[in-house]
Amino acid sequence: MSRIYNFNAGPAVLPLEVIEEAQRELVDFRGTGMSLLESSHRAKAYDAVHNEAIANLRELLGIPEDYAVLFLQGGASTQFSMIPMNLLLPGTSADYVNSGSWASKAVKEAQKVGAVNVIANTAKDIPTRIPAMETLKFTPGAAYVHITSNETIAGAQWKAFPKTEAPLVADMSSDILSRPFDVKDFGLIYAGAQKNLGPSGVTLVIVRKDLAEKAPAGLPTMLDYRTHIEANSLYNTPPTFGIYLLALVTRWVKKVGKENLFKQNVEKAARLYAAIDASGGFFKGTAVPECRSDMNVTFRIFPDGANASEEMEKKFVAEATAAGFAGLKGHRSVGGLRASIYNAFPPQGVDDLVAFMADFQKKNG
Amino acid sequence: MSRIYNFNAGPAVLPLEVIEEAQRELVDFRGTGMSLLESSHRAKAYDAVHNEAIANLRELLGIPEDYAVLFLQGGASTQFSMIPMNLLLPGTSADYVNSGSWASKAVKEAQKVGAVNVIANTAKDIPTRIPAMETLKFTPGAAYVHITSNETIAGAQWKAFPKTEAPLVADMSSDILSRPFDVKDFGLIYAGAQKNLGPSGVTLVIVRKDLAEKAPAGLPTMLDYRTHIEANSLYNTPPTFGIYLLALVTRWVKKVGKENLFKQNVEKAARLYAAIDASGGFFKGTAVPECRSDMNVTFRIFPDGANASEEMEKKFVAEATAAGFAGLKGHRSVGGLRASIYNAFPPQGVDDLVAFMADFQKKNG
Repeated sequence: MSRIYNFNAGPAVLPLEVIEEAQRELVDFRGTGMSLLESSHRAKAYDAVHNEAIANLRELLGIPEDYAVLFLQGGASTQFSMIPMNLLLPGTSADYVNSGSWASKAVKEAQKVGAVNVIANTAKDIPTRIPAMETLKFTPGAAYVHITSNETIAGAQWKAFPKTEAPLVADMSSDILSRPFDVKDFGLIYAGAQKNLGPSGVTLVIVRKDLAEKAPAGLPTMLDYRTHIEANSLYNTPPTFGIYLLALVTRWVKKVGKENLFKQNVEKAARLYAAIDASGGFFKGTAVPECRSDMNVTFRIFPDGANASEEMEKKFVAEATAAGFAGLKGHRSVGGLRASIYNAFPPQGVDDLVAFMADFQKKNG
Repeated sequence: MSRIYNFNAGPAVLPLEVIEEAQRELVDFRGTGMSLLESSHRAKAYDAVHNEAIANLRELLGIPEDYAVLFLQGGASTQFSMIPMNLLLPGTSADYVNSGSWASKAVKEAQKVGAVNVIANTAKDIPTRIPAMETLKFTPGAAYVHITSNETIAGAQWKAFPKTEAPLVADMSSDILSRPFDVKDFGLIYAGAQKNLGPSGVTLVIVRKDLAEKAPAGLPTMLDYRTHIEANSLYNTPPTFGIYLLALVTRWVKKVGKENLFKQNVEKAARLYAAIDASGGFFKGTAVPECRSDMNVTFRIFPDGANASEEMEKKFVAEATAAGFAGLKGHRSVGGLRASIYNAFPPQGVDDLVAFMADFQKKNG
């Protein structure tokens, strides 16, 4: 097998040993005589998987007992609606920080439910950035404050989180479990699994139970966090195979050591940004330096040092793809280039990309 | 490997060759140098999978072009809310046939959204049954009529579908693609994939596009069918691996021949019901004969011919499990026994169960 370097933004690279383990036990799952794909979600074999996934997350993220760990469906996009439906109580308002494409979507859905104060807006800023902490004016009595910890498309990341009086709600889809943070600083955290946690089709929600308890009556059952808290995410059939892979990925994080991965993530990103900065303006990062994401490194090519060239970027993507670097095209909404380097992305792949970039510049600069 | 007979109601048995195929290509998907689990949902390799899944369903179910084929998340339970949010327009009402546990849940969610007429109710009938066609009094001008084609828990199934003036909406989770029907008789069909189509985590929705177009403005984006119709189910990241398995399962149905499977399904169920009826009252089916499900065969044990014995049923389940028949326990809400025998369940397993039942009766009757 010739495994390529996979810079996809999500679904994204997974640890090879996790995929190999899943392959080994795919047909006969741990001696049950059937695939886990065929196992009832009420069966003992699946139950062990489900509970291991929760226990691993509790251990790795230090999730206290007064927070529920839920496995839902529908992605972060469904959470954009579910959060205000549950937490934006009648007569209150919520603060939203609009830091990019994903935050904008969260704002739009919340506005359908209730009163929203966009307390900062850098969504259209070029270079991309997260609003500066000191500019945030929180609304007294807000139901919650919503942020997007890492803008996957813009490649901008909060480097520290605000201390808020209202519960802090964070979309951590693209950087959960990639760096240290304290769950207790948040009221609710959510993340699509398909970046650092597993495959697509599972949405992790970590929610302080007392917040969920205050939701209005009469919500659609599946959109009420209480349903899933009470049933331990087994109210209806969960995405069992995705949760199984999440259990394997978190088991791998435990084995490798989360601190080692956190350190490695910083180093991988630093090496790539250093190469960009050392290119004399041929490559330029699209985010301001203090907000550069360690997960999604976004950059463009300026062949003449002044104007970005879509044509040259196309050439870069084509030649990179041919050389075994997949997924380097920027998001279709913004263009440019993007290297997503999540937990499972190997450091060697960053070094090889840096060498490829230098070579590309030599030929085209 | 000792593969057991898997009578689980869902997630349920899948064709062995599908699982083996998935195993073979799990680490390096069709020469892409990565697992499909790691592939972007915008990549060519996944695109082919996505479109094959849709094309296979269109061909096998004869879905006309004016119907959309959608892959959503959240299971039938989410559709219970999404359907009235989209189709139960202000000022109208919807007819619901309450035929059991699943229909009851659909009714409950619809009532949160708008006016619901329960036009027939057999939910608590023992023996379990579907309301007789001639008793149905449809409401003139209803927005739609909702039925549950097969009650997985009760083991009762509509043997023919009503002709309705209002669009007919059907939860076909547990019998889609198991027998012939005409999509054109329906306005919307939905099904969790985890019975006849694939693993859990994918919900199939087949909807007449003009109905979806009439939905109110301002719905949560993810709960608006139009979002997914316009984006071909790629508005956000879909459950890619589940859709891949659905593509493989439908490919298998095409290979085996749907007519062969439909015939085999009738024969498997007939053999099992015949064994129940020939037991002299030791085993008794829980549904009235004219509504007996070909997918979920529900029955109980009457050791003395008069009273069902939970103790004897426990013994049956324990001994059956030990003998390699898994998942025969009835749903926790109703007890008793249930043999789910979907498309992928092998006929030999039915014959072996029939033999096991005769032997069990000999020892305990």
